[in-house]
Amino acid sequence: MAEATAPSSRSRVRRHPERARYEAQLVEAILDESMICHLGFIADGVPYVVPTMYARAGNQVYIHGSPASRMLQSASGAVDVCLTVTLLDGLVMARSAFHHSMNYRSVMILGSAREVLDPAEKLTAFERLVEHVCRGRWGEVRQPSDKELNSTKVLALGLQEASVKLRSGGPNVPEADQGVSVWAGEIPLRTVALPPSGEDQPNSPAGSHIMSYTRPGWTAPPQPGG
Amino acid sequence: MAEATAPSSRSRVRRHPERARYEAQLVEAILDESMICHLGFIADGVPYVVPTMYARAGNQVYIHGSPASRMLQSASGAVDVCLTVTLLDGLVMARSAFHHSMNYRSVMILGSAREVLDPAEKLTAFERLVEHVCRGRWGEVRQPSDKELNSTKVLALGLQEASVKLRSGGPNVPEADQGVSVWAGEIPLRTVALPPSGEDQPNSPAGSHIMSYTRPGWTAPPQPGG
Repeated sequence: MAEATAPSSRSRVRRHPERARYEAQLVEAILDESMICHLGFIADGVPYVVPTMYARAGNQVYIHGSPASRMLQSASGAVDVCLTVTLLDGLVMARSAFHHSMNYRSVMILGSAREVLDPAEKLTAFERLVEHVCRGRWGEVRQPSDKELNSTKVLALGLQEASVKLRSGGPNVPEADQGVSVWAGEIPLRTVALPPSGEDQPNSPAGSHIMSYTRPGWTAPPQPGG
Repeated sequence: MAEATAPSSRSRVRRHPERARYEAQLVEAILDESMICHLGFIADGVPYVVPTMYARAGNQVYIHGSPASRMLQSASGAVDVCLTVTLLDGLVMARSAFHHSMNYRSVMILGSAREVLDPAEKLTAFERLVEHVCRGRWGEVRQPSDKELNSTKVLALGLQEASVKLRSGGPNVPEADQGVSVWAGEIPLRTVALPPSGEDQPNSPAGSHIMSYTRPGWTAPPQPGG
């Protein structure tokens, strides 16, 4: 494989560069599989990291509003942010304490987020946010009123400075560990949906997108360990 | 319940203050259940958010090193950070797009992180990091060499400015949604461990802490939905 190239100096992965990837397809797959992001921004000179909902729409992500309030107090129009999404795939159990690790796939996006003000784009962003949580949901629920649209801020962030960092596979076994007699390997982790709890409305039972909830990247429901 | 009090003005939850909690016991339970944190810091005037391993030890957390490198370039000794840990508990499906939400428990810790330099404390931090991933693991694996200890940075961050934000329960049903005929409720999400993959060493099969991996806060392995 040709050496991957970072889109900018500051988005180049410095630690463990062998774990770095920059392909758009991989960035998009991780963003589409995960459900929350951690949004970093600076307010009053201090860094904040807030978990929030997001959704990808082509070459950008829309970010749901609540963290925006504090952020937008300290800047108007556009703000420097770092949006990070992480999928934890497994625990890597080595024969030495030092080589314990985790398998994961993460995306970090640096850039300047703009507030979405155009009503039509804002409605599109809401649609993407709902569909990101549950595909097929937007068409069956009540649409946002003007008051609802106005009461929530939405940010947009381009994917130009996105980088992926990932690890997969079993533990490293350096020479010093080759004689160590202890089990080593990976404990895979998965996020699974349990049966939904709620109430059917008259003539409106839960559809298969609720009863058999799944996401891009999810395989058939795994059996838990143990 | 008496009104919760934030430990500092900047750590007071502003959006959805009804979701805020500040009890140490709850902070500790969330930190002990989750496996990765998202660490925010400022470098060259820009916010960064990096996923990394951490572990709680009493009234502080130890943070595993790789993100520290870039961070410590821009400050020596102590650096302002924000460490956020989030457990996603479920998807909240309302009858209207606007009221869709997520159930979650998150901890945000603001503070000044110091680099752990004392060799004895650094060894303790490594022990906590390994035991956080898998209780009982430290005693059965090769201990870190001096070279290994020196090659990884560890940060410590006190829990003084920690706040919890959480949501639980079903969707809000405002008056405008009461006539809407669509299923509404919660789709619970869980992290589960799958059967481990790896190789037994001679006379060292995987113990129950590997074969039946569990964590503080985890209940009996749930059956996945669908």
